[in-house]
Amino acid sequence: MPRILGVDPGSRKTGFGIIELDGKQIKHVINGRLLVGDGEFADRLKQIFDGLTDLILRYQPEIMAIEQVFLHKNADSALKLGQARGAAICAAVNQQLKVHEYSATQIKKAVVGNGHAKKEQVQYMMSVMLQLKEAPMEDAADALACAVTHANHAALDSLSNKLPAGMRISRRRGGRYSR
Amino acid sequence: MPRILGVDPGSRKTGFGIIELDGKQIKHVINGRLLVGDGEFADRLKQIFDGLTDLILRYQPEIMAIEQVFLHKNADSALKLGQARGAAICAAVNQQLKVHEYSATQIKKAVVGNGHAKKEQVQYMMSVMLQLKEAPMEDAADALACAVTHANHAALDSLSNKLPAGMRISRRRGGRYSR
Repeated sequence: MPRILGVDPGSRKTGFGIIELDGKQIKHVINGRLLVGDGEFADRLKQIFDGLTDLILRYQPEIMAIEQVFLHKNADSALKLGQARGAAICAAVNQQLKVHEYSATQIKKAVVGNGHAKKEQVQYMMSVMLQLKEAPMEDAADALACAVTHANHAALDSLSNKLPAGMRISRRRGGRYSR
Repeated sequence: MPRILGVDPGSRKTGFGIIELDGKQIKHVINGRLLVGDGEFADRLKQIFDGLTDLILRYQPEIMAIEQVFLHKNADSALKLGQARGAAICAAVNQQLKVHEYSATQIKKAVVGNGHAKKEQVQYMMSVMLQLKEAPMEDAADALACAVTHANHAALDSLSNKLPAGMRISRRRGGRYSR
């Protein structure tokens, strides 16, 4: 049963969530956040890299799903976010995971049905869809949502591949599907 | 004889240079650049991570020196640079290297004697100081210069530690030394 690791990286907090595909059902495995201490910046990146590596070794996901970043406003925070993303992605590719990116709009549409959904709606929907006893923390919910988005896309792709060639679903920019 | 790996990361080209401290002398070991292909962005980060990991395993440096990034103008390129830096730093910390950062001004001052030196002056000085037959490429020269800057700082620190406590050299912001 393939497992998907969703990640929401940040220089201070990195949300993560792992789900498992059991036939058509999506099962929750674990979610949480890595809190990164106040040490030197290289040590902080090591904490992200090592923390995700440990999760990957323990739970054996095959795929990492991560939110695409568009048009960051502030160059300084974009650099820091970039470094955290670099550490997260290296942890994945170093363990032979495939990495898939989804835009915030794709993710919100996939889990709430509305590309402009609020953070709380994503948290709520994750607790409902994955039958969690309590709503996950914001960044963990974003990470789970990213993993669920990949699961939906993968399911549609596999469905599409079973159709005759002329009827295949084509994926358009922005993640919508159409005949 | 301790070896220092200097790195100048970029999303397309990552310059590297390794030097060796032999007493007071600095010896050149290798320099070059990793060229990253056109593949998916996660694969490109993997190429940086794997390329530097291979270099570290082969040449066994103990320290990585990397240029500090200040006030990037463009948020999009800052994100890409951040990801490349994250990959480079993770390759180092994953092999237990210590990472030291130096500002562009510190580096230019250390190798040319002028914090506003031009790229070509850095290339020229590297070929003279390290007795290279030809000037290294721009990003490789920057990487070597970063490693040489660390070597100078380390030499001054070790000198300072041999002085009586009251006479120790204190390092000020911006990398200058004063009594």
